[in-house]
Amino acid sequence: MSKQLTTRQEDYSKWYNELVVKADLAENSGVRGCMVIKPYGYAIWEKMQAELDRMFKETGHSNAYFPLFVPKSMFEAEEKNAEGFAKECAVVTHYRLKNDPDRPGKLMVDPNAKLEEELIVRPTSEAIIWSTYKNWVQSYRDLPLLINQWANVVRWEMRTRLFLRTAEFLWQEGHTAHATRSEAIAESEKMMEVYAEFAENFMAMPVIKGVKTESERFAGAVETYCIEALMQDGKALQAGTSHFLGQNFAEAFDVKFTSAEGKQDYVWGTSWGVSTRLMGALVMTHSDDKGLVLPPNLAPIQVVIVPIHRTEEQLEQIGSEVKNLMAELRKLGVSVKYDDRTTQSPGFKFNEYELKGVPLRVAIGPKDLENGTFEVARRDTFTKESVSKEGIAAYLKGLLDEIQKNLFTKAFDYRESHITEVNNFDEFKDLLETKGGFISAHWDGTPETEEVIKELTKATIRCIPLDAKEESGACVYSGKPSNKRVLFAKAY
Amino acid sequence: MSKQLTTRQEDYSKWYNELVVKADLAENSGVRGCMVIKPYGYAIWEKMQAELDRMFKETGHSNAYFPLFVPKSMFEAEEKNAEGFAKECAVVTHYRLKNDPDRPGKLMVDPNAKLEEELIVRPTSEAIIWSTYKNWVQSYRDLPLLINQWANVVRWEMRTRLFLRTAEFLWQEGHTAHATRSEAIAESEKMMEVYAEFAENFMAMPVIKGVKTESERFAGAVETYCIEALMQDGKALQAGTSHFLGQNFAEAFDVKFTSAEGKQDYVWGTSWGVSTRLMGALVMTHSDDKGLVLPPNLAPIQVVIVPIHRTEEQLEQIGSEVKNLMAELRKLGVSVKYDDRTTQSPGFKFNEYELKGVPLRVAIGPKDLENGTFEVARRDTFTKESVSKEGIAAYLKGLLDEIQKNLFTKAFDYRESHITEVNNFDEFKDLLETKGGFISAHWDGTPETEEVIKELTKATIRCIPLDAKEESGACVYSGKPSNKRVLFAKAY
Repeated sequence: MSKQLTTRQEDYSKWYNELVVKADLAENSGVRGCMVIKPYGYAIWEKMQAELDRMFKETGHSNAYFPLFVPKSMFEAEEKNAEGFAKECAVVTHYRLKNDPDRPGKLMVDPNAKLEEELIVRPTSEAIIWSTYKNWVQSYRDLPLLINQWANVVRWEMRTRLFLRTAEFLWQEGHTAHATRSEAIAESEKMMEVYAEFAENFMAMPVIKGVKTESERFAGAVETYCIEALMQDGKALQAGTSHFLGQNFAEAFDVKFTSAEGKQDYVWGTSWGVSTRLMGALVMTHSDDKGLVLPPNLAPIQVVIVPIHRTEEQLEQIGSEVKNLMAELRKLGVSVKYDDRTTQSPGFKFNEYELKGVPLRVAIGPKDLENGTFEVARRDTFTKESVSKEGIAAYLKGLLDEIQKNLFTKAFDYRESHITEVNNFDEFKDLLETKGGFISAHWDGTPETEEVIKELTKATIRCIPLDAKEESGACVYSGKPSNKRVLFAKAY
Repeated sequence: MSKQLTTRQEDYSKWYNELVVKADLAENSGVRGCMVIKPYGYAIWEKMQAELDRMFKETGHSNAYFPLFVPKSMFEAEEKNAEGFAKECAVVTHYRLKNDPDRPGKLMVDPNAKLEEELIVRPTSEAIIWSTYKNWVQSYRDLPLLINQWANVVRWEMRTRLFLRTAEFLWQEGHTAHATRSEAIAESEKMMEVYAEFAENFMAMPVIKGVKTESERFAGAVETYCIEALMQDGKALQAGTSHFLGQNFAEAFDVKFTSAEGKQDYVWGTSWGVSTRLMGALVMTHSDDKGLVLPPNLAPIQVVIVPIHRTEEQLEQIGSEVKNLMAELRKLGVSVKYDDRTTQSPGFKFNEYELKGVPLRVAIGPKDLENGTFEVARRDTFTKESVSKEGIAAYLKGLLDEIQKNLFTKAFDYRESHITEVNNFDEFKDLLETKGGFISAHWDGTPETEEVIKELTKATIRCIPLDAKEESGACVYSGKPSNKRVLFAKAY
């Protein structure tokens, strides 16, 4: 906290990197591309996990755990998936180290401990899970299988950024199996809705629900549903995906069932996931040049109380006032911290909690003691007010709700003002460079046009919004006919 | 559930393996030595996690997450640890697969994607965490660091058994850093107490608290505290360990701090962990020849309700009675399931829940409807009784507490009757083969004697109990003087 943050205006990317480290969310580790998620960052992730887990269970899912390693042959069994992922990944080839005879104190890979078949550290678990489902499913009575896994996965990314793109990351992956096509589609849609609800109600991050184009689709999926968010620099971020897999994985891993009518068929599948990437989205949606701004529903500390005192006696008096307030707040389910460290000044503490995005700061000094008040400061609006101690707990709880709403509204207004309908390609290119955001434009439906636009502008089709209206028009690039607008953007 | 379980008498080991699979706790995967933890097993693990996590947080710890991979050189930095673990482990040597040009549809390791430095899949995280702590600690103000991680780890075990010994397993590992020796010792002792409390109050599994001998100590620890449990076959199981690391890891990774007096010193460390091995301990402590027996405090389903009906009308009447009961039970915090599947008979369901160890089974049929009663069956004692529906929810809740206590008492009595004081080596050998259990005997304190006894009998010193009385005696093997008894046993 020695230096001010780089501002978003100066260098958005640098601002993000600095903020993540200075706010104690995460840092790079001694292992290439892998991050350390620090206690404060992990506490936010735990809150995300708890809410998502509750939502998954309420929609009938159970958690389970599958192996970290995937034998190479399992990837080969599912060619499309291997195409998509298996190439850049961590490969285990040996199972032993030994002392290096030529270099005392050093270790070497034991050449006699080579694995017969290489093991891939899972980049995603479809292969291992579907090869397990084969043994779990015989009859329609065994369906649906509604399973989720919280796990770490590894993809050998060349350019990494904390939370947004790391070699190892944490995520949840749901993998379900169904007797009918329509049930599987309903499941993938339902989980997209769960993600959207979580993003909007907990992260206070508005999202657009849509489906991916074929070229942006998950390898092995028939349809990829997604939620897309917009960051403050005008770039989009894919915040969650839910895939309808058709019978692709069932065919690859021979997962068949006997229907109630005695007919054999392959089962229908879905998979869906969100990851620690959401942490990056959270930071970039709300934070400002002073530091993190956290929505109360995910803040590990919702209210921090800082004493301002000259004498020991004052501190004692303050302490007894604070004790009452904390008890009342906790009764209301508010998480509160009293920072009575004497090694740091109030000013230092104010800066620290501003940087860490604590939604409400309450200060109490000798004058407040006299007047029976507290000073309440909001992180989101920087407004300060003196509040009588009578009924203050309920008042603070109300303020937290207001902050939660305010953050959503602010992000929503920003997003709405950054969706622009564009009808010609020069304007398209120009807008991308100046304002950014989502560009709503007609597209001729071909991967070729999508590819050319991407090469020329770095913008990709983020999604075909589910609520896109039927509207005849001409492709913004090729001029060919189109019947609905899609959303383009540069993206994380 | 087609066949009866092998009985414990017939083949204890086979009974265990069958039970874990048939009760849907876990199964072997297609990956050597790695297990799949199935939803029912994982639900028990989640309950364990939730309680432990709560206890860790109540004692001031925060969760964080560190990388899965440990560069080889980090292991070299801590020689003792490398000696202990790093040899049998999964080694990542490459970061890419490619299509095999000679075998269409097959993949091969890309020889051009060899890592400069091999990465070890963590067998434990001291190395990666202490190399991180180096940057987190400068002053005494940064201490203590009280951090826990929930993670998967990999040790390349040759002979594996579900939960008890698997190549990959799930665990938590606490890693703390302190300014003083005494504070670190107090921390390691505190966490051993937390583990003991969890084992006894939640798993209903009595444990003996003690310290390990030097040869059984964790590599790099100055003292290893442990909790030891006794399984129904008379073999001991180490259920958790807490290590006082002295300054060993701080020295290896150069983690120094400036004290309040301005002096530089290495910090003092601890680490402590329990794993999915506890699932094996849970199964082997309470279960019987009919299947799993779960302590109510960890049972995913505490009460199952099964309807017995001939007609649709009866099922409807039963349903409305059950609805009330379920609402009342849930109000009392009891987890309850109503199994009204019409595809299975009541007898089939009774067997299923017996196998899965649900503590209380409630059945309701036409006679019960007439009499205003339910039939209540306890899993632990197989007792059945007819209970009036008035006040039954509170009664069931009380029964759950009684079952929890009964399971602990039963296990405690078994354990107490299997601690035998032995003063000569023939009796020692004889007892190990006939009765098993813990043998309380004098030991001369030398690793040599410990080793010989192990070779001759396969028994190891499980621990030097913390409450061992001062008592002069002669070593059971060498006859040399000893001042306290230690506990020997064959162990998992």
